[in-house]
Amino acid sequence: METVIERNPVSQQISQHIPESKDPRIVIIGGGFAGIELVARLANLPVQVVLLDKHNFHTFQPLLYQVATAGLGPGDISSPLREFLRNKNKNFHFRLATVEHIDHAAKNVITDTGSLHYDYLVIASGAIPNYFGNEELQRNAHSLKSIPEALELRNSMIENFEKALLIKDEEELQKFMNVVIVGAGPTGVELAGAIEELRRNVLPKDYPELDFSKMQIHLIEGQDQVLGAMSDFAGRKAKKYLENMGVNVQLQDILESYDGETAVLKNGDAINTHCLIWAAGVKGNAIDGVGISNVKGGRIAVNHFNEVTGMQDVFAIGDVALMLDEDNPRGYPMLAPVAIQQAENLGRNFEVFIGLKKDADLKPFKYFDKGTMATIGRNKAVVDAPFGIKFGGFFGWFAWMFIHLVSIIGFRRKLLVFSNWLWNYFTYNRGNRFIIKKKN
Amino acid sequence: METVIERNPVSQQISQHIPESKDPRIVIIGGGFAGIELVARLANLPVQVVLLDKHNFHTFQPLLYQVATAGLGPGDISSPLREFLRNKNKNFHFRLATVEHIDHAAKNVITDTGSLHYDYLVIASGAIPNYFGNEELQRNAHSLKSIPEALELRNSMIENFEKALLIKDEEELQKFMNVVIVGAGPTGVELAGAIEELRRNVLPKDYPELDFSKMQIHLIEGQDQVLGAMSDFAGRKAKKYLENMGVNVQLQDILESYDGETAVLKNGDAINTHCLIWAAGVKGNAIDGVGISNVKGGRIAVNHFNEVTGMQDVFAIGDVALMLDEDNPRGYPMLAPVAIQQAENLGRNFEVFIGLKKDADLKPFKYFDKGTMATIGRNKAVVDAPFGIKFGGFFGWFAWMFIHLVSIIGFRRKLLVFSNWLWNYFTYNRGNRFIIKKKN
Repeated sequence: METVIERNPVSQQISQHIPESKDPRIVIIGGGFAGIELVARLANLPVQVVLLDKHNFHTFQPLLYQVATAGLGPGDISSPLREFLRNKNKNFHFRLATVEHIDHAAKNVITDTGSLHYDYLVIASGAIPNYFGNEELQRNAHSLKSIPEALELRNSMIENFEKALLIKDEEELQKFMNVVIVGAGPTGVELAGAIEELRRNVLPKDYPELDFSKMQIHLIEGQDQVLGAMSDFAGRKAKKYLENMGVNVQLQDILESYDGETAVLKNGDAINTHCLIWAAGVKGNAIDGVGISNVKGGRIAVNHFNEVTGMQDVFAIGDVALMLDEDNPRGYPMLAPVAIQQAENLGRNFEVFIGLKKDADLKPFKYFDKGTMATIGRNKAVVDAPFGIKFGGFFGWFAWMFIHLVSIIGFRRKLLVFSNWLWNYFTYNRGNRFIIKKKN
Repeated sequence: METVIERNPVSQQISQHIPESKDPRIVIIGGGFAGIELVARLANLPVQVVLLDKHNFHTFQPLLYQVATAGLGPGDISSPLREFLRNKNKNFHFRLATVEHIDHAAKNVITDTGSLHYDYLVIASGAIPNYFGNEELQRNAHSLKSIPEALELRNSMIENFEKALLIKDEEELQKFMNVVIVGAGPTGVELAGAIEELRRNVLPKDYPELDFSKMQIHLIEGQDQVLGAMSDFAGRKAKKYLENMGVNVQLQDILESYDGETAVLKNGDAINTHCLIWAAGVKGNAIDGVGISNVKGGRIAVNHFNEVTGMQDVFAIGDVALMLDEDNPRGYPMLAPVAIQQAENLGRNFEVFIGLKKDADLKPFKYFDKGTMATIGRNKAVVDAPFGIKFGGFFGWFAWMFIHLVSIIGFRRKLLVFSNWLWNYFTYNRGNRFIIKKKN
């Protein structure tokens, strides 16, 4: 039913129904935290905004791990982009498109459905998993940067236990029960905690035939602490939480290879598993055409106004932007607050770019670090708050829930997530244990 | 990651972790309304129950059309089979499997993961779409019998509007907006009403560039009334509701062909559309090995005790069972209440089959028709209640909601569906407008 696209490629054009406007056109690539914040910030300016994304919804990425572990459904953390942006901006247009490259000389974005002219271009394409060129690993590992990836991990994890039931041989069976998570950043730590809670509270009831004391959850980290970007206090506390729960935390070790059955570590250890989740590296999702010299680790070099080096009228914000300063010699951390604050600042600066204010009003980006947090499980979280305040435990866990709830877009979605959390907490259950695959 | 299955086919066996039991083993194929009711009914008998299904969840099929039209999420109407059955029956085992055929001589069910011995076999495999051998139609049409099919329809419908935005040519554009539903049974009628409400309340806000007064929704029916299985009153009223809303209802017409772009009807009409939903025919999902002479329209002939004709210890219940009597010369209607009542009766009769009661206690199936109903849209439904009582309108709609809510399994799911309905009703919105596809 999609054959027409191929049959009449000329007649289909992304620009067909985007009206000509006397206002300059700002094209934004990506509807993540940075992209949607910028759309909101541009609402009252005389500009036409076109947002491009390959999904028609915004994903609240910090809770993807709960979708992967059946605590939430995909709809609980996704917001249709057309819906919540349409009220903000009258001259706003969304197009479902995958960007292929930029023709900066002609000021065109080339997508899978044709090319679109821009007056200003903002690249907010986020980050993608970085397998460092290891194709075998990429083929066999799970990652967790999008809703489809989270659902695939959920399907596969549950299916592995169904498959374990078909096997008598202990070693073969074990492969379907073990889970290896590589990378102990927030994603790895939160995932390890959530899978551990599945192992303890949910799976033994679902699969009484299997012995879950034999299920191993490994968390492998190259650095010498978990949550390396957080404080020593947070790292030590999180590690203790995880180990007390039963997660095998292995620091200062690196994954050498993974063929889909055995994960081999640098220290020589081999762990049999059909489920390996790669959370050890992401890179910027740079777009072709911004100039090779501008790209490092997939991130696009920008100045303190988020202008891409050497390109007029092109900006990058969020995870994909590489902004260096004294405190951040390797760029700002890839975090939602940085993305949102860059979008806020760029939104303000656009008043200068489109001539409403004078050049002197241009403001460089300044990051206000409101702190970082990670949850490990029920009643367990670690928080590095501003002004050196650090805490954990129940109060940290409560703070984590509160901050995430208020950050989710829309009252209905807050209510859905909150009611699911209440349910999960009091029943020790996870209600979304579905294997939903494509129709066959 | 699934390669091991192929590599070691011998070592993987569906029967590996199903314990030997002194009690007879009842294998049930299918976790629909009939299958899950039977599991519950067998809870207190000295039997071992093994339920097989290709999905690990039960689907509340009457609300599939709301998943397809973004009013509910897939998790709202799906229940993990392991979860809600495990408490009912101590000697209960679920296995994710696709049944390939039955070897009745050896009393084995052969599945995609090996073969399983049964003492008693209950086939409750439901119904599947019937395209009457039209392969072109099958390839191009949507159907609505499962969660993956509902999600595919949802993805495709939303994507069609995104594609319409790429096209200027009026006729080409129209193909992406029009919807044709073939078959005006409950599924067709409820779907037509729900899509009409999308057209009126949701889509114009999402796609202000498109003219939704030009979007056509066609409902094609071969018989001379919609809801042919219900009363004249219900049929006339439903047709009037639909036409007042703006649906083109075309009775006494038949689809001749559909190539993915144009639906040609017997009367010569041609409707351009990329979205055709086939709701005009289902057939029983009979299993190979029950004897060709027993199968008619995919349904398996059974006597009044649901015993498959000419086979010892093999039963069929629900949509797949063809039980004839004077009132139902072509078999009972394929409805959830029939399925549930047959499972109840068979559950009772199993006390005789396993020797707890004597043959004289065997009870033939007797259907108590509690009535049928269909909803057309907000405040609109038709109800044929027992004792010749017929009504519609707001009260019918309220009754429809009440009956469906109490029928959904589990308190949490009732709450989810109810809160979604409240939200949809008061906001005129549908919150699940996501295009979620496989990771690419």
